Amino acid sequence: MSTTSRLQIPERLLLGPGPSMVHPRVYAALGQPVLGHLDPQFIALMSEIQDGLRYVFQTQNQMTIPVSGTGSAGMECALCNFIEPGDSVIVGVIGYFGTRMVDMAGRYGATVRRLDKPWGDVFTLEEIEAELKKGPAKLVALVHAETSTGALQPLEGMADLVHRYGALLITDCVTSLGGVPVKVDERGIDVAFSGTQKCIGAPPGLAPITVSERAREVLRNRKTPVGSWYLDLTAIEKYWGNARTYHHTAPISMNYGLYEALQLVREEGLEARFARHRRHAEMLWAGLEDMDLALHVPPAHRLPCLTTVRIPEGFSDTEVRGRLLREYNIEISGGFGELAGKIWRIGLMGYSSRQENVELLLSALKTILGR
Amino acid sequence: MSTTSRLQIPERLLLGPGPSMVHPRVYAALGQPVLGHLDPQFIALMSEIQDGLRYVFQTQNQMTIPVSGTGSAGMECALCNFIEPGDSVIVGVIGYFGTRMVDMAGRYGATVRRLDKPWGDVFTLEEIEAELKKGPAKLVALVHAETSTGALQPLEGMADLVHRYGALLITDCVTSLGGVPVKVDERGIDVAFSGTQKCIGAPPGLAPITVSERAREVLRNRKTPVGSWYLDLTAIEKYWGNARTYHHTAPISMNYGLYEALQLVREEGLEARFARHRRHAEMLWAGLEDMDLALHVPPAHRLPCLTTVRIPEGFSDTEVRGRLLREYNIEISGGFGELAGKIWRIGLMGYSSRQENVELLLSALKTILGR
Repeated sequence: MSTTSRLQIPERLLLGPGPSMVHPRVYAALGQPVLGHLDPQFIALMSEIQDGLRYVFQTQNQMTIPVSGTGSAGMECALCNFIEPGDSVIVGVIGYFGTRMVDMAGRYGATVRRLDKPWGDVFTLEEIEAELKKGPAKLVALVHAETSTGALQPLEGMADLVHRYGALLITDCVTSLGGVPVKVDERGIDVAFSGTQKCIGAPPGLAPITVSERAREVLRNRKTPVGSWYLDLTAIEKYWGNARTYHHTAPISMNYGLYEALQLVREEGLEARFARHRRHAEMLWAGLEDMDLALHVPPAHRLPCLTTVRIPEGFSDTEVRGRLLREYNIEISGGFGELAGKIWRIGLMGYSSRQENVELLLSALKTILGR
Repeated sequence: MSTTSRLQIPERLLLGPGPSMVHPRVYAALGQPVLGHLDPQFIALMSEIQDGLRYVFQTQNQMTIPVSGTGSAGMECALCNFIEPGDSVIVGVIGYFGTRMVDMAGRYGATVRRLDKPWGDVFTLEEIEAELKKGPAKLVALVHAETSTGALQPLEGMADLVHRYGALLITDCVTSLGGVPVKVDERGIDVAFSGTQKCIGAPPGLAPITVSERAREVLRNRKTPVGSWYLDLTAIEKYWGNARTYHHTAPISMNYGLYEALQLVREEGLEARFARHRRHAEMLWAGLEDMDLALHVPPAHRLPCLTTVRIPEGFSDTEVRGRLLREYNIEISGGFGELAGKIWRIGLMGYSSRQENVELLLSALKTILGR
C-alpha cells in the first residue's frame, strides 16, 4: 500500500463563519505520531496546551482545558456543570446561539428566563439588571460574539453586576477567542468557552473552556451528579489536573493541532493578533460600503471576526454564494433563522484574516454584483 | 514563520488498549485542507464515511454515523437517546466499561438493574434471560469487548432473546469493531458504538455508532427531549441524513482520517483483517505461555484484539512497563479497578497488529523478565 492518502481535497478560501483556514504548521502537527493518552510526553504537552489556553483566554484559572468535542460540546459543558434541576437561569438571546443555550439549559432541568432582543442587537447592563431584580438566578449566560448576527456583546461591568446578584456569568466566546480581547480575569467572567476552528486557527474538534474559582466552588457544592458523563468537569479535571486519572481517551491528534495553533498565537502576540483582525475587518467594511452594501450591525458593537452584510435587492443569496464557490473557490455563508436570505456572513478569523483574502473577496463581489 | 511544526513527537510502538498505531496514509489524510462542514465536497465525503462504517459494522442501517467525540461520547450517545427518566434498564458488568454504562444510565434517569460477573467472565443467554423474566426492561446494555479484562462477550442469540422480552440490545464495540466480527444485522443488534482509535486504526476523536430501525422507532416515540443536546440523534440525523441541516460543526480533519482508515479496511477486506488480528493474537498467546505466563481470560471467550496476561510474582507492574517504554519504546498498559497491579493489557489492534510487533514485544519481555 502506498503512503499517499487517496483523499485529495483542494484548498478553499474559507471566509465563512468557521471553520476558518489552518496554518501549514498546524496541519504538520496533526500528522505527528499518536501517543497514548497517559504517555508522559502527552501529559507534558497537555500542560503546555493549558498554558496556551490561559494566555488566549487572558486568565490564570487553573481549570482551563480543551473539551473533547466541537464548540457546541463546550457550550453544553459550560451549562450542564453549573445547572441542577430546578435552577433559575437567565439566558440572553440576540441570535441563534442564544436560543441554543435556552434549549440546552432546559434539557438539564433549568427554569429558563429568556431575554430576547432583535438579532444583531446587544444587551445593556440595565437590561440584565432589570431581569436580575425580578428574583434570584443561579447564572446568567450571554453570547460574547453572536456568530449568527455578527454582534459583539460588551462585557465591561457585566460580571460585577451579575456577581452582586449572587449569580455566575457564562459567556459564549466561540467566535471571539483569539480575535478580540476576552479578558476573562480582568472582566471577572466565571465560565468562558470557545471552539478551535475560528480565531484560534486549528481544525474543529476541541472546545476550550475556562472556569473561575467562584464557579468551581459552585461545582463542588452540587447536590446532584452532572447530567452528562462525557462533559462532567468534576471527572475531567482529574485527568487535566494533577492526578492525571483516566477519564476518556483524549483526541490526541487534535490536541497536537491545538498546541501548534496556540504556539502561533504566542509568536504573533495577542495584541498584534487583535489588531490584525480589526485592520482586515475595517478594510472589508470600507470595501463593502464602497459598493453601497449595508452592514447589518452598527459600528459600536460590530464584531471584527465576522461581518454581516445585507444582501442587496435583486440578488439571490444562494446564487451569489454558489458563484463565489465555483468561480473563486471562496466560501462565505448565508444567514440563520430570522436572518436567512437577508444577510451574508463573512469571516476573517485566524489564518483566514489576511489582506489578500479581503482584496480577492471584494474584487469577486464587485464582479458578481456588477458594482 | 516556517511551515515545520515545532512539535516533534517520536513514534511509539503502541501495544496498549488504545490508541493504537496509525497508518501513514491516515496521517496524510489528517493534513488535507479543512473544508466547511456544509461544503458540497465534505457532504459527499460524509456519505462515503457512512458507507465505510456500514461495511465494518456489517449493517445496512441508515443511521450509521461517527459521533463527534471519542468512544465514551459514543457510549453516552447510545444510552441517552434511548433512555427516558424512569425507564428500567439492564446493564451487564463484566469489567470497568460496564460500570461506566451503569453510571451514565443513572445520570439519564434510568432505574438501572445491574448484573455483575467476575472481571474476565462473560454472560450466558440464561443469565440475561433470568433478569429479563423479573420484569419489563427498555433495554439491555452489554460490553462486546471488555477493554479492561480482554473478554469477548458472545452475542449469538442475544438480540433475539432481548427482543422476545420487548427490549433493545445495545453493545459496546469499542475494542471489537474492525478486529473481530460485529455483525450488527445478522445478530440483530439494535445499537452498537465504537471508537476510531482501536481496530479501525485512526486517531481517537470520533465514535462510530449504528442504530437499527427498531431503535429508531423507540427514538421517534420519546415523550421527553434527549437529555444531551450535543449527542441528540434526532437532531444529528438531520445533518448526516438527507436534509444536511446544520447541527454542530463536525470535526472535519478527524473525518478525513476516518475516511482513509475505512478505505484501508476495505482494501484489506474484513475477513482478512479479522484473520490477521486472530493470527497475531495467537502468536502472542503462544509466546506468553512459552514464558510460563498465565493468560487471564480462558480461550473460549478471549478477545484477539486485547490480551490480558497475569503479572508474574516478584515483578512490579510499573517497573516492567517503565522499562518497556524507556528501553524499547513500547507502550503496554496495566489493569484497572480490581485488576490493577494484577494484569498487563496488550493490544494488537488495527495497524499495531503486525508480526514484527509481536516478536519485538515477546523478545523484550523475555529480556526484562529473564525468561
